[in-house]
Amino acid sequence: MAGDEGTYFEDLEVGYEFEFGAYEVTREEIIEFAQKYDPQPFHLSDEAAAKMHFGKLCASGWHTCAMVMHMTVDYLAEHKWHGLGGRGIDKLNWKRPVYPGDVLRLKNKIIEARVSKSRPYMGLNVIEYKCLNQKDEVVMTYEATVFNLRKGYTAPDA
Amino acid sequence: MAGDEGTYFEDLEVGYEFEFGAYEVTREEIIEFAQKYDPQPFHLSDEAAAKMHFGKLCASGWHTCAMVMHMTVDYLAEHKWHGLGGRGIDKLNWKRPVYPGDVLRLKNKIIEARVSKSRPYMGLNVIEYKCLNQKDEVVMTYEATVFNLRKGYTAPDA
Repeated sequence: MAGDEGTYFEDLEVGYEFEFGAYEVTREEIIEFAQKYDPQPFHLSDEAAAKMHFGKLCASGWHTCAMVMHMTVDYLAEHKWHGLGGRGIDKLNWKRPVYPGDVLRLKNKIIEARVSKSRPYMGLNVIEYKCLNQKDEVVMTYEATVFNLRKGYTAPDA
Repeated sequence: MAGDEGTYFEDLEVGYEFEFGAYEVTREEIIEFAQKYDPQPFHLSDEAAAKMHFGKLCASGWHTCAMVMHMTVDYLAEHKWHGLGGRGIDKLNWKRPVYPGDVLRLKNKIIEARVSKSRPYMGLNVIEYKCLNQKDEVVMTYEATVFNLRKGYTAPDA
């Protein structure tokens, strides 16, 4: 795919697949995130989670999104991805609970690619995100719409 | 809408609107979240953000989601909402940057309501989320699909 100069829109053809990440989820981090942003009992204690179908303490779905973002930022940096930001997320689906000790990774695929009509220096990509745990179970899926620089172009300043 | 006994599926008819929240976004929190989950330069420093269309330091989009979740959890508790969890998110759109000093709030609407066929004790609601800042500008929208207990029913244990 991408050359030494990094990853451009042209490298991201429909069907292109890329895998990355190994994020170990800890009990401490689940509780810390939940206390700050999603203080529902089943994200705070095993006892409360045991009363629901979760069975045991599990991460806030938004925490899973945040962990996936961290892996994404690392991947983009590593591959010198010439990204121009994201527009939004579609079809976000929390499929299974994320538990302490889980190790998350991504298995992504480009499912749409087209040049912007209004801003020809960039292209739009839709990326299918599939977040798996260490048992290869899918815990979350979504589609992200992002913009990427085209080869040979320079992004104008604001 | 809801009586003293709380908010049930039957209280959430299509068209029902509800507003809540007043979350003050601080520079410290933007940077703390970004360092942990979205360490892109424009979420970490004014200097880097000034080089992009953001103009100045702004919050990670996922951080905005997390802040909205906190306001939601508070609202659900306050209104004794008999929620049974969320399934997913659609049409998430980050419309404007969220800056330090912004005060966020929600203006939501029920846009779908139907009883579950497989689990008659609950109903499915789609909630249109609209997150506004203190200038009444829309900063984020999405649609959340959630489950709620029906009046007169008890949720079975897992």
